[in-house]
Order: sequence, then structure tokens, then C-alpha cells
Amino acid sequence: MKVAIQGERGSFSHQAAGELAPKAQVLPCSRSVEVFDALDSGEAACAVIPVENTLAGYVGEHLDLLLEREVFIQREYRLRIEHNLIAAPGTRLKDLHQVLSHPVALDQCRKFFRKHHGIAPVAFYDTAGSVKHVVQNKMKDTGAIASHGAAKEYGGRILMTGLEDEKQNFTRFFLIQKRKKVLANADKSSIVFSLKNLAGALFKALSVFALRDLDLSKIASRPVRGRPWEYMFYVDILRGEDEAMGKALDHLAEIAGLVKVLGVYPRAK
Amino acid sequence: MKVAIQGERGSFSHQAAGELAPKAQVLPCSRSVEVFDALDSGEAACAVIPVENTLAGYVGEHLDLLLEREVFIQREYRLRIEHNLIAAPGTRLKDLHQVLSHPVALDQCRKFFRKHHGIAPVAFYDTAGSVKHVVQNKMKDTGAIASHGAAKEYGGRILMTGLEDEKQNFTRFFLIQKRKKVLANADKSSIVFSLKNLAGALFKALSVFALRDLDLSKIASRPVRGRPWEYMFYVDILRGEDEAMGKALDHLAEIAGLVKVLGVYPRAK
Repeated sequence: MKVAIQGERGSFSHQAAGELAPKAQVLPCSRSVEVFDALDSGEAACAVIPVENTLAGYVGEHLDLLLEREVFIQREYRLRIEHNLIAAPGTRLKDLHQVLSHPVALDQCRKFFRKHHGIAPVAFYDTAGSVKHVVQNKMKDTGAIASHGAAKEYGGRILMTGLEDEKQNFTRFFLIQKRKKVLANADKSSIVFSLKNLAGALFKALSVFALRDLDLSKIASRPVRGRPWEYMFYVDILRGEDEAMGKALDHLAEIAGLVKVLGVYPRAK
Repeated sequence: MKVAIQGERGSFSHQAAGELAPKAQVLPCSRSVEVFDALDSGEAACAVIPVENTLAGYVGEHLDLLLEREVFIQREYRLRIEHNLIAAPGTRLKDLHQVLSHPVALDQCRKFFRKHHGIAPVAFYDTAGSVKHVVQNKMKDTGAIASHGAAKEYGGRILMTGLEDEKQNFTRFFLIQKRKKVLANADKSSIVFSLKNLAGALFKALSVFALRDLDLSKIASRPVRGRPWEYMFYVDILRGEDEAMGKALDHLAEIAGLVKVLGVYPRAK
């Protein structure tokens, strides 16, 4: 069984896949759309995708793909993001003149670069990919910022841990599959709906949950392609499949243009 | 008078600044935080920043900076985004093996790359910057994707226009200043507020507008730094400063942790 991820081996997605699908073999994909294609073709039985980070916000492309493609969320997982300074064996901290990583990771380690004036941050396409690049090319003056898994994967040496400015840094991942399957202890739902006109409509849409004491844990909006200034709303509700949720969704269908249940799953601790 | 923008001369922000602050001299900044610093230091009298695109969604970093920094929105503008294929003088379409641009721009021109198999998309830090790079280095096999303004700015030749897959592609810009100033015809407000607990609280927060027939045109959420799974809500209301809005904001303060008015301005056509 294979689990598709976006990014290289040793990435944070790889780490999350190890928690959500520990027995599956990892299938790394360079682009997000290829992850969903791997589910469609049957090459992968499941996929693990990041959907939001507590500093950077939601991953728009993945919210769009959850709406467009026929997939179902089966589990969620919250991964603590720890950034490490990694280099090729033999390279020491004082040898470094530049450090590669994904721009989001570099931005989360501002204090490190402020303290080490002689080291320049350089944007790279991927966190784990930056370690692969630095180690495979035996770079003497260049380091990388990534997970400890990336250091292990490519034989890099960890020179420093806890580089992130803000320790309260988590990324939320979904385990998705093609077919709908609801686990017995599922107590959380993710849905998406469209509203033609926002004036008062969003208030009415949220009332279908509030009137039934169904608690929301998140709301996010995304633009609708080809319809400027119209939005899709992504809402998480702290409730599984039961009568109240069924009635709320029927009620929502009276107000919203489109309603899609993206998944019903046990909430993460 | 100077207007600060993020990005190079010839960027879409430069084009928007030409509409929002036509008489000001442009001050290009490489990072968004430098744009806000230029307002703080008085180096720039105003700034023009993109806040959302109808395909890519909101610009998270700019929403965060609007909350953190002491600035006020004075105008909004909606710019139609047109992508052009630009090259150094003498280079023809059949000479091209790769095309540079910002990843978001490349992603908006997928049909072009599907049609031209021999041309590879290559990520670059900036749209206008890619034109500058290609023209100044007199590259023979490399093109760039950017605005017509970028071609003009750097002496590039436009080989093809309308490269974007989706013509309904707009970016919304704000003109911001340090001091609060409300224009006479201001009929739209942008606010941000925090909610400690989302359960029912968002519904109550939106009720302060719905109960007074104040129409929302947008809602976006951003994570709160250091408080995982808590959010700030950015809401646009189709109303200027009047009694109903004042009462709604007082009412909101009873429910929300923090309420900040980001600006009151005339709505864009």
C-alpha cells in the first residue's frame, strides 16, 4: 500500500504520513495535483496533505483540490514543526555563509539570521530538498533548514535544533482516500459551501449550526475561479454524522449554492 | 511624495500605484515589511499593497501587517491581471527553452506551457524582476511572464499577450497611509477582530452586522501567532462611518477580544 505526499522524502509531510499511515510505503510527488492524480489512478491507496499551519495560515491549493476532486478525509493530525540547521558531514557552523530552505521555513527562523549576520537565507523549493542538495553536493559553506527526518534521510548532520522563533508552530494534516469511510469514533466534520451573495447570507448559513448548538472550530474562505469576489466557505464542525448534523446540512442546502461534505473523522488531540 | 511598493518597478503593484497615487514617485522595496517600515520612518507618504487575488486568494502577510502596524486604508483598487510573454530584443518565440516568472504567475498560464512542450516554466522571485533579469543579461533562450509595464520599464519585447488561462483575474490593492483620513464618499469599511472561542462566537459576532442590515462583502480568517487554532477575522462591510456602524462596532466589542478598524474608504467599481 502506498501513501502519496507532496515533497521529498524526509519532509514534514513524510513525517505526518509516518503517523497517519505508518505501514504504507511513501510515494513522493513534486506537485500537489500529482498527489490527487495518484489517488485517481489507484497508484496510491491514500494521501497525506497539509491543510493549515498555525503561523502561515491555510494551504489554499489543497483546500481547492479537496473541493474539486472526489476524495474523503478519514483522519486529521497536528504535527509540531521543529526546524533544524543541517549541513553535510564535516561542515561546521562557522563555515556557513548561506542557508537554504523553503521561504516559509526561512521566515520562521528570523532570530537565527539576525544573530548570525554572516549567514544569508536563500530560498529553495523544499525544506527536505535543501538538505538533499547540500549533502549530495558536499557543500562546504552552505547549510539547510529542515526536519530531523530530512537529516536522517540524506545523511546530513544536525548542527543546531529549535531554530524556529515561535515554538507554538503546528501544521494540520489530513489523511485522504478516494472512498468515503467514517471511523467509529468520528466526532468532527469538514464541509465546504458556496454563497451567491454574501450580504446576510453567511449569517444565515452559520445559523443552521448555531440554532442546533453545533460548534464550529474553523472557517476559511477561498475565491471562486471565474467568479471574481465570490467565495467558497470551508467550515469545520465539532460533530460527527448524526441527526442534528443531517438536519443542519439539509437546512444549509436551502441557503447555499453548493454543499459538499469533505470528511467526517475523529478530532486530533 | 513617495509611494512604497513591494517588488520591482514594472510590477503589478507599480501599475496599481500609478492608479491610486499617480503623482507620487515609486519607492520599490524587496520585502513587504520594508514597505511598512518606509511609512513608519516617513520615507514614503503612502504605500500600495495587494490584499487579495480572485484566483490565488488573500495575501496573508499583508493582512497580518495591517493588523500589527499603525496604518489606515484610504482607497481600494481592482486591477485586471494580464500576463505577457516578454523577451530580450531579437529573441523570437521559437528560440525559447524556458520562461521565468513568479510561481503564482506561472501557475496562471498552464495552457501556454501545455501547448508549448519545449518551453519549461522556471520559478523566479518576481514577475517584473524576471523581465529585468532576461533583458539585462540579453538571454537568447529565456523569456519572462509579466505585465506590459515591465516590458516597457526594462526594454523587453512583448512576444505574446493574454497568456493567463482565466481572464477573470483581478487583484485588489489598498492605498494605505500612517494617519486616519476618511474621504467624503467613503462607503465601505474593513475591520479585524479576534474571538477567543469559535463555538457560537462567530455567529454572534456576525449578528451585530446582520441585525442592523449591514452587508458584508468578505470574510477571511488568519491564525493568531503563539495561540494555535485561534483566529483573527477580517471583515469588509458595505458601509462607511455612520450611526449604525458605530453601534455595530460597540456591540462587537462586547463579543470580540480585539476590534480594529483598518480603514473606511470608497468602494471600487
